[in-house]
Amino acid sequence: MPPSPTAALRTLWFGPHTIPLSQTFLLTPLTYGLVNLKPIRPGHVLLATRLPHPRFSDLSPDEVADLFLQAQRVSRAITRQFNAQSLTLCIQDGKEAGQTVPHVHLHVIPRNEGDFPDNDDVYEKLEHTHRIDNEERTPRSQQDMAGEAEMLRKEIGEWNTDTDF
Amino acid sequence: MPPSPTAALRTLWFGPHTIPLSQTFLLTPLTYGLVNLKPIRPGHVLLATRLPHPRFSDLSPDEVADLFLQAQRVSRAITRQFNAQSLTLCIQDGKEAGQTVPHVHLHVIPRNEGDFPDNDDVYEKLEHTHRIDNEERTPRSQQDMAGEAEMLRKEIGEWNTDTDF
Repeated sequence: MPPSPTAALRTLWFGPHTIPLSQTFLLTPLTYGLVNLKPIRPGHVLLATRLPHPRFSDLSPDEVADLFLQAQRVSRAITRQFNAQSLTLCIQDGKEAGQTVPHVHLHVIPRNEGDFPDNDDVYEKLEHTHRIDNEERTPRSQQDMAGEAEMLRKEIGEWNTDTDF
Repeated sequence: MPPSPTAALRTLWFGPHTIPLSQTFLLTPLTYGLVNLKPIRPGHVLLATRLPHPRFSDLSPDEVADLFLQAQRVSRAITRQFNAQSLTLCIQDGKEAGQTVPHVHLHVIPRNEGDFPDNDDVYEKLEHTHRIDNEERTPRSQQDMAGEAEMLRKEIGEWNTDTDF
């Protein structure tokens, strides 16, 4: 069962799953950033709403604004840390668009020339790989994920704490 | 040459191209919506910043917030008008991510079960089709585009005018 809105303010939920703090690198009252268990490229991270809204249209105006303002901060950090020439920013808004966890999340994926044999392959990987569900790829260790989260937290330059957390 | 910021406030630019008003369906001081010459699905539209910023990181906080608040309005209109079960929302932020016109724009693409033989094909189409550059597909008529823009303008429920326009 998805959590109640009140519970969601105290716990980092990703759909029905809980996310350890060690795997997060950004936190506001409305948005959080998490590293990937199975990134399709190094530095492929996710930004999710604190509340487990299934669809983009469910977000309040404040949630919309905060999600993408945080995405801009994360884009800059990812660009620096992973020497990204470009970025793919994508929301799979609903299951017919490839969404597997029914909780709004934005993919931020560093891109470089020749990173995939065909430029489109990024999306194939995106739709066939998932943080929680995909069984095909070897997951990273908790230590790797915590290390990346810590690096990004430093790169972003602050760790936003809030009393609800 | 890209226009000066002042000129951009009076003209709808898409990178180095100008966009006829008849092909637009939403206009705020910071954001506009345009229909596609070569949509990959019916209802595939674009939202662009009024100023021709090349990259997502170039946007001001107000531009970021407005772009995605308008995207939410457009998402709802597209969902209703095209009976979309889901949506793909994507920014190709830089040429290594498939961006061909160096002007920040968000793709909003209606998605339905079975709309592509493989769900990933949406991205292949996205990266191989472009409003301006792509020569492979037959472009739609100006009349078709104006009709769709008018329909969306009505669905969105208002036509925002501003004195700069």
